[in-house]
Amino acid sequence: MKILLIGAHGTIGQAVASQLSARHQVVTAGRTRGDHRVDLADDASVAALMKAVGPIDAIVCTAGNLHFGPLADMTAEQFNIGLQDKLLGQVRLVLHGAPTLRDGGSITLTSGVLGIEPIRNGANATAVNAALEGFVTAAAIELPRGLRINVVSPTLLTESLDTYGPFFPGFETVPANRVALAYQRSVEGAQTGRVYRVM
Amino acid sequence: MKILLIGAHGTIGQAVASQLSARHQVVTAGRTRGDHRVDLADDASVAALMKAVGPIDAIVCTAGNLHFGPLADMTAEQFNIGLQDKLLGQVRLVLHGAPTLRDGGSITLTSGVLGIEPIRNGANATAVNAALEGFVTAAAIELPRGLRINVVSPTLLTESLDTYGPFFPGFETVPANRVALAYQRSVEGAQTGRVYRVM
Repeated sequence: MKILLIGAHGTIGQAVASQLSARHQVVTAGRTRGDHRVDLADDASVAALMKAVGPIDAIVCTAGNLHFGPLADMTAEQFNIGLQDKLLGQVRLVLHGAPTLRDGGSITLTSGVLGIEPIRNGANATAVNAALEGFVTAAAIELPRGLRINVVSPTLLTESLDTYGPFFPGFETVPANRVALAYQRSVEGAQTGRVYRVM
Repeated sequence: MKILLIGAHGTIGQAVASQLSARHQVVTAGRTRGDHRVDLADDASVAALMKAVGPIDAIVCTAGNLHFGPLADMTAEQFNIGLQDKLLGQVRLVLHGAPTLRDGGSITLTSGVLGIEPIRNGANATAVNAALEGFVTAAAIELPRGLRINVVSPTLLTESLDTYGPFFPGFETVPANRVALAYQRSVEGAQTGRVYRVM
């Protein structure tokens, strides 16, 4: 398969690239690194990426920013960061990317454990991740030509424990190479509308 | 209690006003009607509303627009309508409204059945409603002073069957006065972080 991977230089993205590149052609794209430049906040940028790489068999996205901070201090503008970046950025990728996929192709997005396990400072993350998981179930019933869409929801990465551990008290972690298997299941499997939780 | 009701002139809002006004003082606000004018897309407008009505015991919101249309034709700009209006509008109300509530006060938002039951043309609705339900579970654990937050998720209203029925094939409907009971449970009950599904 020819697979477009966005966010290939993040911790999860690197593991996914490593897992998939043994058997597939992986083309990478990112805001600042990768085979192609793309800004998921910009329709023209995403459209140009699809024109440059298509036709393809799978799209995987491991990119997206959220706002973390106490609810009491949060502004609507801060909350909108996650809506515009991790949520609408990935939705935009689906809207532009689906027509670029060959029949039976797939899209795999990324949510996160906070979608179902809230923590302090995480209201934006919970809302955005829950929205992505909802979106995938809805998009799955409308995609044509046997196209599939799933989302991977990883818990805290073992690699991120030093940085983010204090925000996730008592959470078990998973190494990125375990998370990468869920992306492989989504890309090479037959399911659609699924949330793959890696906890 | 003194209750601020936003969206009091919609089908659900009217039923909620009727249900709550027998025992409480209900102050209404809306984009074009009600005791006060408010634009939930505008921080200054929401802040001004809170200054005008506070202190209060409960906030209920039954207002919010979504985009409906086929996924294949959807643009990111259209998808953003629901994010900015029904989702961020209600979140903005929470961020500005919480400090206006008396100790132990409550906020009740509105999602909808599409959050867990996708239909064709409903990808934006599913994402937004799922996000609201996630947000409420996260906000509930951070609100201070015994403040509570819940969301009511109604299925298709009996009153809306003629207009929206064709989009909801085989869905049972509920009359708005049954939906109004869920808002009463949220306002007068003791729960927080709950999704009240009325199906």
